[in-house]
Amino acid sequence: VTNSASSPFFRTLGIIGVGLIGGSIGLSFKKAGLVHQVLGAGRSTSNLETALQLGQIDHIVDAQTLAKESDLIVICVPVAKTKEILQSIVKHLKPNAMVFDVGSTKMDVIAAAKEVLVDRVGQFIPCHPIAGGAQHGAIAAKDDLFYEKQMIVCPLLENRPLDVQSIVACWEKIGASVFQMGALEHDHIFAAVSHLPHLLSYALMLQIANAPDAEKKFVHAGAGFRDFTRIAGSSPEMWTDISLANRSAILQELDAYLSIIERMKKAIQEQDTPTLQKMLQIASDSRNQWQK
Amino acid sequence: VTNSASSPFFRTLGIIGVGLIGGSIGLSFKKAGLVHQVLGAGRSTSNLETALQLGQIDHIVDAQTLAKESDLIVICVPVAKTKEILQSIVKHLKPNAMVFDVGSTKMDVIAAAKEVLVDRVGQFIPCHPIAGGAQHGAIAAKDDLFYEKQMIVCPLLENRPLDVQSIVACWEKIGASVFQMGALEHDHIFAAVSHLPHLLSYALMLQIANAPDAEKKFVHAGAGFRDFTRIAGSSPEMWTDISLANRSAILQELDAYLSIIERMKKAIQEQDTPTLQKMLQIASDSRNQWQK
Repeated sequence: VTNSASSPFFRTLGIIGVGLIGGSIGLSFKKAGLVHQVLGAGRSTSNLETALQLGQIDHIVDAQTLAKESDLIVICVPVAKTKEILQSIVKHLKPNAMVFDVGSTKMDVIAAAKEVLVDRVGQFIPCHPIAGGAQHGAIAAKDDLFYEKQMIVCPLLENRPLDVQSIVACWEKIGASVFQMGALEHDHIFAAVSHLPHLLSYALMLQIANAPDAEKKFVHAGAGFRDFTRIAGSSPEMWTDISLANRSAILQELDAYLSIIERMKKAIQEQDTPTLQKMLQIASDSRNQWQK
Repeated sequence: VTNSASSPFFRTLGIIGVGLIGGSIGLSFKKAGLVHQVLGAGRSTSNLETALQLGQIDHIVDAQTLAKESDLIVICVPVAKTKEILQSIVKHLKPNAMVFDVGSTKMDVIAAAKEVLVDRVGQFIPCHPIAGGAQHGAIAAKDDLFYEKQMIVCPLLENRPLDVQSIVACWEKIGASVFQMGALEHDHIFAAVSHLPHLLSYALMLQIANAPDAEKKFVHAGAGFRDFTRIAGSSPEMWTDISLANRSAILQELDAYLSIIERMKKAIQEQDTPTLQKMLQIASDSRNQWQK
């Protein structure tokens, strides 16, 4: 967790993609006095109007206007769309404007930023707030979405330390705990603790849904199944996007997982009680030690 | 859900294994006026004394005495121990005594019952209450553990219909919803919706616990991970026992699961967005339709 002394201030914040995350950034940055005005751009006019009515943004503009007028820009779109958003704003960015994203993967976003921004990539600060919810769109945004949540910042060598400090200070002002780490490390950690479990949960749900006796199975599925599959209710678009964006780390974690499953399977086939019980014991002990 | 008219009554209930389930049966059967007195037998004297103090049982006896004096006997031990418990009581059973179990698997328990009870197997009624908790032992027992919970009964061809009806009526009296089904069907349904997710959850926990950067991963693991791995905190002994007892159905479900994972993996490797998204969409839709 990084600390910083003085409070940053930006005259104009531009939010591209004013959904749950973007709208919540608008609300919480305004509430914390970090910005004077907020511009919003996006694909859905009705969603932008909701964001305007709810005070998340002050004006609806197009991406070019937003780029020309903003001192701080946040890109809140599916990670696979980051490149095209950057292409639409790169020629219009103020020389000292800072841009950050909120994507769940970082290596692919940074590759896109380097490709599009080239020698101006130092203006781009990769971020990932560990916050969200089941609901989507501006309608779901909240001014305390990031309060006591983790915020991962993956600074680039090209970033000016003062800019990074300033973004970190913004996140801290809205109550987040900031962690700085490299993008590669970020992608591997979240492949293991977030992306892989999402895929595993989706897969079990798919198996039951496709079973000939699905209805009966759903009748008898209980609390364990409910918790295990809760994340399978997440947005398929978002998780397809993340799975492909972070495929290298995910495939590596998935192979590690499959080798553990094969060891379990073998122990069950061979009725090898001590091996199976030892595996379950280690898992159970570490789950009970980790209480969150 | 089965309905029955008159209330059954047993002079003496014998509980072998007075833990969370056994103790809760003692409390709830007494509370519902289903039994006159309750005998308890088990391995741990201190646990039996707790059960006695808490009114779950009225007398501590050995298994033979329990068998000789009880009109209704419930076996609440790990499924792999069922055979040895039946062997210890078979010679002492009253001619009209009914015996039921509460094991999470049924085919193996029935095989043990047929082997040990032979022509008296009709006295054995296989049951599986879908209830439990994180705590263990008599100390954790509650008089409402089965209230509004599912109770699966897998009657044998050899059972007298009146006996089955009587057991069903007991469960209903303590507030459970009774479902009758075949043992093979039971084992396949619970392999899919309970046993498999437990193993998958244990496996992910094991993977993170064994990672060189485990500590860092646990710091960043969030709510999705917490829910996905909650069941990995369950008893390793109990789940080793269940995994081996129901290995045939579990291995079948595990192979079906692995083939879904292989399809997902291929879609990710080939960056096949439509296929991956369709899979996640079906899973997500059915999770959101199933709300429990």
